[in-house]
Amino acid sequence: MKVGLAQINPTIGAFDENIAMMVGCAGRAREAGCDLVVFPEFALCGYPPQDLLERKDFIENSLSASRRLVSSVSGVAMLFGCLTPARYGKPLHNSAILCEDGRVLGEVHKRLLPSYDIFDETRYFKPGDISEPVLFRDIPLGITICEDMWSGTDLMPLHYYSCNPVADLAGKGARVFINLSCSPFDVGKMDVRRDIVRKNAVTCQSPFLYVNSVGGQDSLIFDGGSFVMTARGEIIAHAADFEEDFIAVDLDSMKGDIHTVTGSREEAVVKALEMGLIDYTRRCGISRVTLGLSGGVDSSVTAVLASRALGAENVLGVIMPSPYTSGASVEDAELLAANIGIRTITLPIYDIFKVYLDVLEPVFSGRKPDVAEENIQARIRGNLLMAISNKLGHMVLSTGNKSEFAVGYCTLYGDMSGGYALISDLPKMMVYDVARYLNSLEETIPERVLTRAPSAELRPDQSDQDDLPPYEVLDPILELYLEKNFSFDQIVGRGFQPDVVSTIIKMVDRSEYKRRQAPIGPRVTAKAFGIGRRYPIAHGYRRS
Amino acid sequence: MKVGLAQINPTIGAFDENIAMMVGCAGRAREAGCDLVVFPEFALCGYPPQDLLERKDFIENSLSASRRLVSSVSGVAMLFGCLTPARYGKPLHNSAILCEDGRVLGEVHKRLLPSYDIFDETRYFKPGDISEPVLFRDIPLGITICEDMWSGTDLMPLHYYSCNPVADLAGKGARVFINLSCSPFDVGKMDVRRDIVRKNAVTCQSPFLYVNSVGGQDSLIFDGGSFVMTARGEIIAHAADFEEDFIAVDLDSMKGDIHTVTGSREEAVVKALEMGLIDYTRRCGISRVTLGLSGGVDSSVTAVLASRALGAENVLGVIMPSPYTSGASVEDAELLAANIGIRTITLPIYDIFKVYLDVLEPVFSGRKPDVAEENIQARIRGNLLMAISNKLGHMVLSTGNKSEFAVGYCTLYGDMSGGYALISDLPKMMVYDVARYLNSLEETIPERVLTRAPSAELRPDQSDQDDLPPYEVLDPILELYLEKNFSFDQIVGRGFQPDVVSTIIKMVDRSEYKRRQAPIGPRVTAKAFGIGRRYPIAHGYRRS
Repeated sequence: MKVGLAQINPTIGAFDENIAMMVGCAGRAREAGCDLVVFPEFALCGYPPQDLLERKDFIENSLSASRRLVSSVSGVAMLFGCLTPARYGKPLHNSAILCEDGRVLGEVHKRLLPSYDIFDETRYFKPGDISEPVLFRDIPLGITICEDMWSGTDLMPLHYYSCNPVADLAGKGARVFINLSCSPFDVGKMDVRRDIVRKNAVTCQSPFLYVNSVGGQDSLIFDGGSFVMTARGEIIAHAADFEEDFIAVDLDSMKGDIHTVTGSREEAVVKALEMGLIDYTRRCGISRVTLGLSGGVDSSVTAVLASRALGAENVLGVIMPSPYTSGASVEDAELLAANIGIRTITLPIYDIFKVYLDVLEPVFSGRKPDVAEENIQARIRGNLLMAISNKLGHMVLSTGNKSEFAVGYCTLYGDMSGGYALISDLPKMMVYDVARYLNSLEETIPERVLTRAPSAELRPDQSDQDDLPPYEVLDPILELYLEKNFSFDQIVGRGFQPDVVSTIIKMVDRSEYKRRQAPIGPRVTAKAFGIGRRYPIAHGYRRS
Repeated sequence: MKVGLAQINPTIGAFDENIAMMVGCAGRAREAGCDLVVFPEFALCGYPPQDLLERKDFIENSLSASRRLVSSVSGVAMLFGCLTPARYGKPLHNSAILCEDGRVLGEVHKRLLPSYDIFDETRYFKPGDISEPVLFRDIPLGITICEDMWSGTDLMPLHYYSCNPVADLAGKGARVFINLSCSPFDVGKMDVRRDIVRKNAVTCQSPFLYVNSVGGQDSLIFDGGSFVMTARGEIIAHAADFEEDFIAVDLDSMKGDIHTVTGSREEAVVKALEMGLIDYTRRCGISRVTLGLSGGVDSSVTAVLASRALGAENVLGVIMPSPYTSGASVEDAELLAANIGIRTITLPIYDIFKVYLDVLEPVFSGRKPDVAEENIQARIRGNLLMAISNKLGHMVLSTGNKSEFAVGYCTLYGDMSGGYALISDLPKMMVYDVARYLNSLEETIPERVLTRAPSAELRPDQSDQDDLPPYEVLDPILELYLEKNFSFDQIVGRGFQPDVVSTIIKMVDRSEYKRRQAPIGPRVTAKAFGIGRRYPIAHGYRRS
């Protein structure tokens, strides 16, 4: 039996477009002599449709699209993810349909519905209550959907879900396993998936086909990287990651296509961010972006990524010097723009700032300068960028990093302004790593940007390190607090100074209201701000 | 048996404070001769703690607080909501503990975990799998938690949850029913709750005690209104709504305290918004607010509510005339401020606007004026308000209504700026209703504000109705689309013009990115924007 793995990038709710794409893949599989072509989880609807699933018209359109797809393909069987109705409880199943020549051969319902981090599947779906192999070409297929294969692993121990669909299928004689996934990327996730599939394949002594979705959907990045593993845990077929791909595997000869996958962490992050930006702008009907260039590492990395993703001709850099902007900053911004070939415009903010101070004189008079004056400058820049956005139809890219968002070292309606915060899930140290990686491909970011002490330049001789601990200390503490949910005591137990830890925790907790108003941005770590991290703004829990 | 219903307003994670409050109520119950005092769902932790429930230290602190509370009270039994550990599946239960004189008499786990709208309970909790009466003073008590009593009703038909804890308890001989709730307010919700309890009480032929939480938590308003119903569905005890309260009921004589509850829809909305603002500011450590006064109905209503809630001395109105601001608008803003006794400051934006246009000349030159120039003005106002906020430590109240947020008729980082959007869940027509209700209490909003055509005044002779359908048409369409999930065809079927409906749906869908960056605000309708409505920004679903 020969199977095609169609790693596609469907758009949520674009049923006609998704069907056309899937019919195209089916044709390709047929031409390649495949008996079966497998699509990812929710391939037909796109994932995650979120509350569109509460709209009857969306459900009806989706069900009718399933029927159309089933009847549109002949000469090759298809296994694809879609929604199906449930009879009681939540009204829908997250399902996989196996069909051939217009007939449905089998229907499988996802049993393990993730409900944590970015996942809300129990909000919409009723879990399947049983796993049965589906017979195809006399082979009992063990079909599961995404989370179904994660039970009984270190990450998701058996007691969490109290059942293991893959083990159930093995017990009922399944001989070839197929998992349809829509599994979001984070750094290191691909290794985790391979380990999970290896454990399942070896335990069940059967080949395992893993078909993942690809593409950027709002803040989620699906990285693809579909693969086939033997019963001994060897990979015999592998799709590319971060792009649409099609691979075939012959399960008799156990040979398949091997396409190149990403090597380093930095390369993966760069591909994730670029794909996220491309898909978000495309699906929102945006072709050009504008961003502020400060001469710092954050805006430099954002500009390089944007010009690589969208083309230098579609990126406008805006240099907005304030009274406190150093000459070096402007020089570096201009040099960077020249290196990557984007247009720039320089809009000094001194004059506007001065009039604000005049107008605010009745309020500010007699009070000493503080963060208010700094934020006015940041918000003038936000207003200028948004004015360009409104006038030219560009989207503003905001340039803040995760460390800043975490401790609130950023100005709401100022540098936080924008439609997409491209590096908002990159801790500052990772921004530097990505900058050096980008420079290793092509030397575009001026060396001085990577070596100068970072500064917001909103007051004379300001440096980030006047207001924050060094990033070498800040980032590890943030990772322990945000990603590992460590307590104050546990973090201090790792050797960090209690007063520093206490200050950082308070800063994180106090800036929840800012993050709630932040633009979305692509998720690349295991715990990003946004839909996957839900904290009350007002609460009385004090930890340190 | 005499029972006290302690309708309290706990703060999330403020365990010491919550314990002190609960011990106080227990003392009051003991003095009133009660055998038992009942607290709401999650009284000890506050609700909803959201992802704080993923922190081990939060769980440990909460469990130790339960033990402290149990051992702190004698002479009266307590029934209170708290978390308890679960042995497999999700690690926690949403529980009720019955205790007396330091001993735990019973523990009940919530079985029906809401996972829709603003609720995420399957994210955190394992459902209880059985309902058993708990014996107290020889009476089998049927104890349920919030959603547990909703099964088998029109709103939540039996097939949705496939079980009915109240019916199970009745079948096992429960004779007095108690429900601990943390049920969020929306307009009309109190009637729904009374109907649900009546159905349960009459079906089970037993008295039913309903104890609800009270207070504002971020965007959620818990309205209290705890009550006791006889087996015939008559209310024999009732707490006040929108405030902390304590009532007692004697289940032998079937007599209890009856406190006054809110009459009209507008009165309830006003109380909800005021409580939401008071609790949000208090818990965030804010005592003063600033808002822009435009002379329109939205900012007028917001100012009146804020001055009622926080005291006129804690509200600063900022009048920011633009070149297009009419004299009438400034007069009305000043008159309103004088009527409610708040301080004002006038900061004209002409000069700043002019310098922006000068600076942006290289970009704007040769292009005709459009929304870009309008938004610059709105964002100057946002910047001025935030500058005052930063300098004086005030929180900015944003003044946009739900109709504007729905169709995106508002400026991101402009009039959308603020920490709390007080009337953001009020459709424009409801804003007028609330304005008239407020004027019926005390004539503060100038009559002209209620009769002039609404305008953003961002270009010459602008009126909302140039850009939008009349609110009499817009608001009902929005309600059908947003609250009822009606399709385009269904809305048109209600007699609205197809082109108008189509335009409005497109506007709603296109402004998802703006709403994602909006400040939170109190929820008063059954479907508010924010955490209870989760839509993708980028998608391809086109309905009309």
